Amino acid sequence: MKVEVQRQVHARLMRIAGQVAGIQRMAHEDRYCVDILLQIAAVRAALDQVGKLMLGAHVETCVAEAFANGSAGERRKKTEELLEVFSRFGSVSKR
Amino acid sequence: MKVEVQRQVHARLMRIAGQVAGIQRMAHEDRYCVDILLQIAAVRAALDQVGKLMLGAHVETCVAEAFANGSAGERRKKTEELLEVFSRFGSVSKR
Amino acid sequence: MKVEVQRQVHARLMRIAGQVAGIQRMAHEDRYCVDILLQIAAVRAALDQVGKLMLGAHVETCVAEAFANGSAGERRKKTEELLEVFSRFGSVSKR
Amino acid sequence: MKVEVQRQVHARLMRIAGQVAGIQRMAHEDRYCVDILLQIAAVRAALDQVGKLMLGAHVETCVAEAFANGSAGERRKKTEELLEVFSRFGSVSKR
Repeated sequence: MKVEVQRQVHARLMRIAGQVAGIQRMAHEDRYCVDILLQIAAVRAALDQVGKLMLGAHVETCVAEAFANGSAGERRKKTEELLEVFSRFGSVSKR
Repeated sequence: MKVEVQRQVHARLMRIAGQVAGIQRMAHEDRYCVDILLQIAAVRAALDQVGKLMLGAHVETCVAEAFANGSAGERRKKTEELLEVFSRFGSVSKR
Repeated sequence: MKVEVQRQVHARLMRIAGQVAGIQRMAHEDRYCVDILLQIAAVRAALDQVGKLMLGAHVETCVAEAFANGSAGERRKKTEELLEVFSRFGSVSKR
Repeated sequence: MKVEVQRQVHARLMRIAGQVAGIQRMAHEDRYCVDILLQIAAVRAALDQVGKLMLGAHVETCVAEAFANGSAGERRKKTEELLEVFSRFGSVSKR
Protein backbone atom coordinates (compact mmCIF):
# COMPACT_ATOMS: atom_id res chain seq x y z
CA MET A 1 0.00 0.00 0.00
CA LYS A 2 1.07 3.54 -0.63
CA VAL A 3 2.26 5.39 2.47
CA GLU A 4 -0.63 7.86 2.32
CA VAL A 5 -3.28 5.11 2.15
CA GLN A 6 -1.52 3.18 4.90
CA ARG A 7 -1.57 6.27 7.13
CA GLN A 8 -5.31 6.71 6.57
CA VAL A 9 -5.99 3.02 7.18
CA HIS A 10 -4.05 3.17 10.46
CA ALA A 11 -5.94 6.26 11.63
CA ARG A 12 -9.31 4.75 10.79
CA LEU A 13 -8.53 1.40 12.43
CA MET A 14 -7.38 3.25 15.55
CA ARG A 15 -10.72 5.04 15.70
CA ILE A 16 -12.62 1.80 15.10
CA ALA A 17 -10.77 0.15 17.99
CA GLY A 18 -11.84 3.10 20.16
CA GLN A 19 -15.45 2.74 19.04
CA VAL A 20 -15.46 -0.98 19.87
CA ALA A 21 -14.09 -0.19 23.34
CA GLY A 22 -16.91 2.35 23.69
CA ILE A 23 -19.51 -0.30 22.81
CA GLN A 24 -17.99 -2.66 25.37
CA ARG A 25 -18.40 0.06 27.98
CA MET A 26 -22.00 0.72 26.91
CA ALA A 27 -22.83 -2.98 27.18
CA HIS A 28 -21.12 -3.19 30.56
CA GLU A 29 -23.19 -0.24 31.83
CA ASP A 30 -26.32 -1.98 30.47
CA ARG A 31 -27.23 1.00 28.29
CA TYR A 32 -30.38 1.04 26.12
CA CYS A 33 -30.16 -1.71 23.45
CA VAL A 34 -31.11 0.59 20.59
CA ASP A 35 -28.30 3.03 21.43
CA ILE A 36 -25.81 0.16 21.43
CA LEU A 37 -27.24 -1.19 18.18
CA LEU A 38 -26.81 2.17 16.47
CA GLN A 39 -23.19 2.32 17.69
CA ILE A 40 -22.59 -1.18 16.31
CA ALA A 41 -24.04 0.00 12.98
CA ALA A 42 -21.64 2.98 13.08
CA VAL A 43 -18.61 0.69 13.51
CA ARG A 44 -19.88 -1.46 10.66
CA ALA A 45 -20.10 1.62 8.43
CA ALA A 46 -16.59 2.67 9.51
CA LEU A 47 -15.25 -0.79 8.60
CA ASP A 48 -16.91 -0.50 5.20
CA GLN A 49 -15.13 2.81 4.66
CA VAL A 50 -11.73 1.29 5.47
CA GLY A 51 -12.63 -1.58 3.19
CA LYS A 52 -13.45 0.76 0.35
CA LEU A 53 -10.23 2.70 0.88
CA MET A 54 -8.15 -0.47 0.78
CA LEU A 55 -10.05 -1.89 -2.16
CA GLY A 56 -9.36 1.25 -4.18
CA ALA A 57 -5.66 1.04 -3.34
CA HIS A 58 -5.63 -2.66 -4.17
CA VAL A 59 -7.25 -2.19 -7.59
CA GLU A 60 -4.95 0.71 -8.47
CA THR A 61 -1.81 -1.22 -7.57
CA CYS A 62 -2.00 -5.04 -7.37
CA VAL A 63 -4.90 -5.55 -9.79
CA ALA A 64 -3.59 -2.99 -12.26
CA GLU A 65 -0.14 -4.62 -12.17
CA ALA A 66 -1.56 -8.12 -12.71
CA PHE A 67 -3.68 -7.02 -15.65
CA ALA A 68 -0.84 -5.01 -17.19
CA ASN A 69 1.96 -7.55 -16.81
CA GLY A 70 0.65 -10.73 -15.22
CA SER A 71 -0.03 -14.16 -16.67
CA ALA A 72 -3.55 -15.33 -17.49
CA GLY A 73 -3.49 -17.25 -14.18
CA GLU A 74 -2.56 -14.16 -12.19
CA ARG A 75 -5.30 -12.14 -13.85
CA ARG A 76 -7.84 -14.84 -13.10
CA LYS A 77 -6.70 -14.94 -9.47
CA LYS A 78 -7.12 -11.16 -9.08
CA THR A 79 -10.60 -11.34 -10.60
CA GLU A 80 -11.65 -14.14 -8.26
CA GLU A 81 -10.31 -12.25 -5.25
CA LEU A 82 -12.27 -9.14 -6.23
CA LEU A 83 -15.50 -11.14 -6.50
CA GLU A 84 -14.76 -12.79 -3.17
CA VAL A 85 -14.34 -9.38 -1.50
CA PHE A 86 -17.48 -8.11 -3.25
CA SER A 87 -19.39 -11.15 -1.94
CA ARG A 88 -18.22 -10.81 1.61
CA PHE A 89 -18.92 -7.10 1.88
CA GLY A 90 -22.15 -6.93 -0.03
CA SER A 91 -24.97 -9.13 1.02
CA VAL A 92 -24.25 -11.15 -2.07
CA SER A 93 -24.63 -14.65 -0.80
CA LYS A 94 -22.36 -17.27 -2.27
CA ARG A 95 -24.21 -20.05 -4.02
CA MET B 1 -20.37 -9.50 -22.65
CA LYS B 2 -19.52 -13.00 -23.75
CA VAL B 3 -22.46 -14.88 -25.25
CA GLU B 4 -22.48 -17.46 -22.46
CA VAL B 5 -22.64 -14.78 -19.73
CA GLN B 6 -25.28 -12.87 -21.67
CA ARG B 7 -27.40 -16.01 -21.91
CA GLN B 8 -27.16 -16.56 -18.16
CA VAL B 9 -27.96 -12.91 -17.42
CA HIS B 10 -31.05 -13.09 -19.65
CA ALA B 11 -32.29 -16.27 -17.98
CA ARG B 12 -31.80 -14.85 -14.48
CA LEU B 13 -33.48 -11.53 -15.31
CA MET B 14 -36.43 -13.44 -16.81
CA ARG B 15 -36.79 -15.35 -13.56
CA ILE B 16 -36.49 -12.16 -11.50
CA ALA B 17 -39.27 -10.52 -13.57
CA GLY B 18 -41.42 -13.57 -12.79
CA GLN B 19 -40.62 -13.30 -9.08
CA VAL B 20 -41.58 -9.61 -9.03
CA ALA B 21 -44.89 -10.46 -10.74
CA GLY B 22 -45.41 -13.10 -8.03
CA ILE B 23 -44.84 -10.52 -5.29
CA GLN B 24 -47.34 -8.18 -6.97
CA ARG B 25 -49.89 -11.01 -6.87
CA MET B 26 -49.12 -11.74 -3.20
CA ALA B 27 -49.58 -8.06 -2.30
CA HIS B 28 -52.81 -7.92 -4.32
CA GLU B 29 -54.15 -10.96 -2.46
CA ASP B 30 -53.14 -9.27 0.84
CA ARG B 31 -50.95 -12.21 1.86
CA TYR B 32 -49.07 -12.29 5.18
CA CYS B 33 -46.49 -9.47 5.29
CA VAL B 34 -43.66 -11.71 6.44
CA ASP B 35 -44.16 -14.08 3.49
CA ILE B 36 -44.03 -11.14 1.10
CA LEU B 37 -40.97 -9.73 2.87
CA LEU B 38 -39.12 -13.03 2.49
CA GLN B 39 -39.98 -13.09 -1.22
CA ILE B 40 -38.67 -9.55 -1.59
CA ALA B 41 -35.46 -10.67 0.11
CA ALA B 42 -35.25 -13.57 -2.37
CA VAL B 43 -35.47 -11.20 -5.35
CA ARG B 44 -32.84 -9.01 -3.75
CA ALA B 45 -30.52 -12.02 -3.44
CA ALA B 46 -31.24 -12.99 -7.06
CA LEU B 47 -30.33 -9.44 -8.19
CA ASP B 48 -27.08 -9.70 -6.25
CA GLN B 49 -26.28 -12.92 -8.07
CA VAL B 50 -26.83 -11.33 -11.50
CA GLY B 51 -24.74 -8.41 -10.29
CA LYS B 52 -21.90 -10.69 -9.28
CA LEU B 53 -22.08 -12.55 -12.59
CA MET B 54 -21.90 -9.30 -14.56
CA LEU B 55 -19.18 -7.87 -12.36
CA GLY B 56 -17.00 -10.93 -12.96
CA ALA B 57 -17.51 -10.63 -16.71
CA HIS B 58 -16.80 -6.89 -16.55
CA VAL B 59 -13.52 -7.32 -14.65
CA GLU B 60 -12.35 -10.12 -16.94
CA THR B 61 -13.02 -8.12 -20.07
CA CYS B 62 -13.37 -4.30 -19.80
CA VAL B 63 -11.24 -3.81 -16.69
CA ALA B 64 -8.56 -6.25 -17.87
CA GLU B 65 -8.43 -4.50 -21.25
CA ALA B 66 -8.12 -1.04 -19.68
CA PHE B 67 -5.34 -2.13 -17.35
CA ALA B 68 -3.48 -3.97 -20.11
CA ASN B 69 -3.71 -1.36 -22.86
CA GLY B 70 -5.54 1.72 -21.59
CA SER B 71 -4.27 5.16 -20.68
CA ALA B 72 -3.80 6.27 -17.08
CA GLY B 73 -7.16 8.06 -17.36
CA GLU B 74 -8.96 4.93 -18.55
CA ARG B 75 -7.45 2.85 -15.74
CA ARG B 76 -8.52 5.44 -13.18
CA LYS B 77 -12.04 5.48 -14.64
CA LYS B 78 -12.33 1.68 -14.36
CA THR B 79 -11.13 1.79 -10.76
CA GLU B 80 -13.64 4.48 -9.84
CA GLU B 81 -16.46 2.56 -11.51
CA LEU B 82 -15.57 -0.58 -9.56
CA LEU B 83 -15.65 1.32 -6.27
CA GLU B 84 -18.96 2.88 -7.24
CA VAL B 85 -20.47 -0.56 -7.93
CA PHE B 86 -18.98 -1.88 -4.68
CA SER B 87 -20.54 1.07 -2.80
CA ARG B 88 -23.97 0.66 -4.31
CA PHE B 89 -24.17 -3.08 -3.76
CA GLY B 90 -22.54 -3.31 -0.38
CA SER B 91 -23.92 -1.27 2.41
CA VAL B 92 -20.85 0.87 2.03
CA SER B 93 -22.29 4.31 2.41
CA LYS B 94 -20.80 7.06 0.34
CA ARG B 95 -19.33 9.85 2.38
CA MET C 1 -52.24 -4.16 5.49
CA LYS C 2 -53.89 -0.80 5.72
CA VAL C 3 -55.34 0.42 2.42
CA GLU C 4 -52.93 3.36 2.24
CA VAL C 5 -49.84 1.15 2.72
CA GLN C 6 -51.21 -1.39 0.26
CA ARG C 7 -51.67 1.34 -2.33
CA GLN C 8 -48.06 2.50 -1.87
CA VAL C 9 -46.75 -1.06 -2.03
CA HIS C 10 -48.65 -1.66 -5.28
CA ALA C 11 -47.30 1.55 -6.84
CA ARG C 12 -43.72 0.76 -5.86
CA LEU C 13 -43.90 -2.85 -7.07
CA MET C 14 -45.31 -1.63 -10.38
CA ARG C 15 -42.35 0.69 -10.77
CA ILE C 16 -39.91 -2.07 -9.80
CA ALA C 17 -41.43 -4.37 -12.45
CA GLY C 18 -40.85 -1.58 -14.97
CA GLN C 19 -37.25 -1.15 -13.85
CA VAL C 20 -36.59 -4.89 -14.22
CA ALA C 21 -38.04 -4.79 -17.75
CA GLY C 22 -35.69 -1.86 -18.43
CA ILE C 23 -32.69 -3.88 -17.26
CA GLN C 24 -33.76 -6.78 -19.50
CA ARG C 25 -33.78 -4.35 -22.42
CA MET C 26 -30.36 -2.97 -21.48
CA ALA C 27 -28.90 -6.48 -21.30
CA HIS C 28 -30.53 -7.39 -24.61
CA GLU C 29 -28.98 -4.30 -26.25
CA ASP C 30 -25.62 -5.32 -24.71
CA ARG C 31 -25.24 -1.99 -22.92
CA TYR C 32 -22.18 -1.16 -20.81
CA CYS C 33 -21.95 -3.55 -17.82
CA VAL C 34 -21.43 -0.79 -15.28
CA ASP C 35 -24.60 1.03 -16.38
CA ILE C 36 -26.57 -2.21 -16.02
CA LEU C 37 -24.96 -2.89 -12.63
CA LEU C 38 -25.97 0.54 -11.35
CA GLN C 39 -29.54 -0.09 -12.53
CA ILE C 40 -29.56 -3.43 -10.73
CA ALA C 41 -28.38 -1.62 -7.58
CA ALA C 42 -31.25 0.87 -8.03
CA VAL C 43 -33.84 -1.94 -8.14
CA ARG C 44 -32.25 -3.48 -5.08
CA ALA C 45 -32.59 -0.16 -3.23
CA ALA C 46 -36.22 0.13 -4.39
CA LEU C 47 -36.94 -3.37 -3.05
CA ASP C 48 -35.40 -2.38 0.27
CA GLN C 49 -37.72 0.61 0.41
CA VAL C 50 -40.81 -1.55 -0.16
CA GLY C 51 -39.45 -3.95 2.43
CA LYS C 52 -39.07 -1.16 4.96
CA LEU C 53 -42.57 0.12 4.23
CA MET C 54 -44.08 -3.33 4.73
CA LEU C 55 -42.00 -4.02 7.81
CA GLY C 56 -43.24 -0.82 9.44
CA ALA C 57 -46.85 -1.77 8.68
CA HIS C 58 -46.24 -5.29 9.95
CA VAL C 59 -44.77 -4.14 13.27
CA GLU C 60 -47.55 -1.59 13.82
CA THR C 61 -50.29 -4.13 13.20
CA CYS C 62 -49.46 -7.85 13.46
CA VAL C 63 -46.54 -7.57 15.89
CA ALA C 64 -48.30 -4.99 18.05
CA GLU C 65 -51.41 -7.19 18.19
CA ALA C 66 -49.43 -10.31 19.14
CA PHE C 67 -47.56 -8.50 21.90
CA ALA C 68 -50.72 -6.84 23.23
CA ASN C 69 -53.04 -9.85 23.19
CA GLY C 70 -51.20 -12.94 21.97
CA SER C 71 -49.94 -15.99 23.84
CA ALA C 72 -46.27 -16.45 24.74
CA GLY C 73 -45.99 -18.72 21.69
CA GLU C 74 -47.39 -16.09 19.35
CA ARG C 75 -45.06 -13.44 20.73
CA ARG C 76 -42.08 -15.74 20.27
CA LYS C 77 -43.16 -16.47 16.69
CA LYS C 78 -43.37 -12.75 15.85
CA THR C 79 -39.93 -12.15 17.35
CA GLU C 80 -38.40 -15.00 15.35
CA GLU C 81 -40.01 -13.75 12.15
CA LEU C 82 -38.61 -10.25 12.72
CA LEU C 83 -35.11 -11.61 13.21
CA GLU C 84 -35.51 -13.76 10.10
CA VAL C 85 -36.49 -10.69 8.04
CA PHE C 86 -33.63 -8.70 9.59
CA SER C 87 -31.21 -11.51 8.64
CA ARG C 88 -32.40 -11.82 5.08
CA PHE C 89 -32.34 -8.10 4.34
CA GLY C 90 -29.20 -7.14 6.19
CA SER C 91 -26.03 -8.91 5.37
CA VAL C 92 -26.46 -10.63 8.71
CA SER C 93 -25.46 -14.15 7.86
CA LYS C 94 -27.27 -16.93 9.61
CA ARG C 95 -24.99 -19.15 11.61
CA MET D 1 -30.74 -7.23 28.99
CA LYS D 2 -30.98 -10.65 30.52
CA VAL D 3 -27.79 -11.80 32.21
CA GLU D 4 -27.30 -14.65 29.73
CA VAL D 5 -27.56 -12.35 26.70
CA GLN D 6 -25.30 -9.81 28.39
CA ARG D 7 -22.68 -12.49 28.97
CA GLN D 8 -22.78 -13.51 25.30
CA VAL D 9 -22.63 -9.90 24.13
CA HIS D 10 -19.57 -9.28 26.33
CA ALA D 11 -17.79 -12.38 25.03
CA ARG D 12 -18.48 -11.49 21.41
CA LEU D 13 -17.40 -7.86 21.82
CA MET D 14 -14.18 -9.04 23.47
CA ARG D 15 -13.46 -11.25 20.48
CA ILE D 16 -14.29 -8.42 18.07
CA ALA D 17 -11.85 -6.09 19.88
CA GLY D 18 -9.21 -8.80 19.46
CA GLN D 19 -9.99 -9.13 15.75
CA VAL D 20 -9.67 -5.36 15.25
CA ALA D 21 -6.29 -5.41 17.00
CA GLY D 22 -5.30 -8.23 14.64
CA ILE D 23 -6.27 -6.16 11.60
CA GLN D 24 -4.23 -3.23 12.95
CA ARG D 25 -1.23 -5.58 13.17
CA MET D 26 -1.82 -6.87 9.63
CA ALA D 27 -1.99 -3.30 8.29
CA HIS D 28 1.15 -2.37 10.23
CA GLU D 29 3.01 -5.35 8.74
CA ASP D 30 1.74 -4.28 5.29
CA ARG D 31 0.11 -7.65 4.64
CA TYR D 32 -1.69 -8.44 1.38
CA CYS D 33 -4.72 -6.15 0.96
CA VAL D 34 -7.11 -8.95 0.13
CA ASP D 35 -6.24 -10.84 3.33
CA ILE D 36 -6.89 -7.68 5.36
CA LEU D 37 -10.15 -7.04 3.46
CA LEU D 38 -11.39 -10.55 4.26
CA GLN D 39 -10.56 -10.00 7.93
CA ILE D 40 -12.48 -6.72 7.89
CA ALA D 41 -15.43 -8.57 6.37
CA ALA D 42 -15.16 -11.13 9.18
CA VAL D 43 -15.38 -8.42 11.87
CA ARG D 44 -18.35 -6.91 10.05
CA ALA D 45 -20.11 -10.30 10.11
CA ALA D 46 -19.27 -10.67 13.81
CA LEU D 47 -20.78 -7.23 14.53
CA ASP D 48 -23.91 -8.27 12.66
CA GLN D 49 -24.16 -11.34 14.86
CA VAL D 50 -23.94 -9.26 18.06
CA GLY D 51 -26.49 -6.91 16.54
CA LYS D 52 -28.89 -9.76 15.84
CA LEU D 53 -28.43 -11.13 19.35
CA MET D 54 -29.18 -7.75 20.91
CA LEU D 55 -32.08 -7.07 18.58
CA GLY D 56 -33.71 -10.35 19.57
CA ALA D 57 -33.31 -9.51 23.25
CA HIS D 58 -34.64 -6.01 22.64
CA VAL D 59 -37.77 -7.22 20.84
CA GLU D 60 -38.48 -9.88 23.47
CA THR D 61 -38.20 -7.40 26.34
CA CYS D 62 -38.50 -3.67 25.59
CA VAL D 63 -40.65 -3.92 22.46
CA ALA D 64 -42.89 -6.62 23.94
CA GLU D 65 -43.35 -4.53 27.10
CA ALA D 66 -44.24 -1.38 25.13
CA PHE D 67 -46.77 -3.21 22.98
CA ALA D 68 -48.31 -4.99 25.95
CA ASN D 69 -48.55 -2.07 28.34
CA GLY D 70 -47.29 1.10 26.69
CA SER D 71 -49.11 4.13 25.37
CA ALA D 72 -49.71 4.70 21.66
CA GLY D 73 -46.72 7.06 21.71
CA GLU D 74 -44.42 4.45 23.25
CA ARG D 75 -45.51 1.83 20.73
CA ARG D 76 -44.86 4.23 17.87
CA LYS D 77 -41.43 5.05 19.28
CA LYS D 78 -40.48 1.35 19.46
CA THR D 79 -41.65 0.82 15.88
CA GLU D 80 -39.61 3.76 14.63
CA GLU D 81 -36.53 2.57 16.48
CA LEU D 82 -36.86 -0.90 14.95
CA LEU D 83 -37.07 0.56 11.45
CA GLU D 84 -34.09 2.78 12.19
CA VAL D 85 -32.02 -0.24 13.27
CA PHE D 86 -33.24 -2.18 10.25
CA SER D 87 -32.17 0.72 7.99
CA ARG D 88 -28.74 1.08 9.49
CA PHE D 89 -27.90 -2.60 9.39
CA GLY D 90 -29.43 -3.51 6.07
CA SER D 91 -28.40 -1.61 3.03
CA VAL D 92 -31.79 0.02 3.21
CA SER D 93 -30.96 3.57 2.42
CA LYS D 94 -32.91 6.26 4.16
CA ARG D 95 -34.82 8.52 1.82
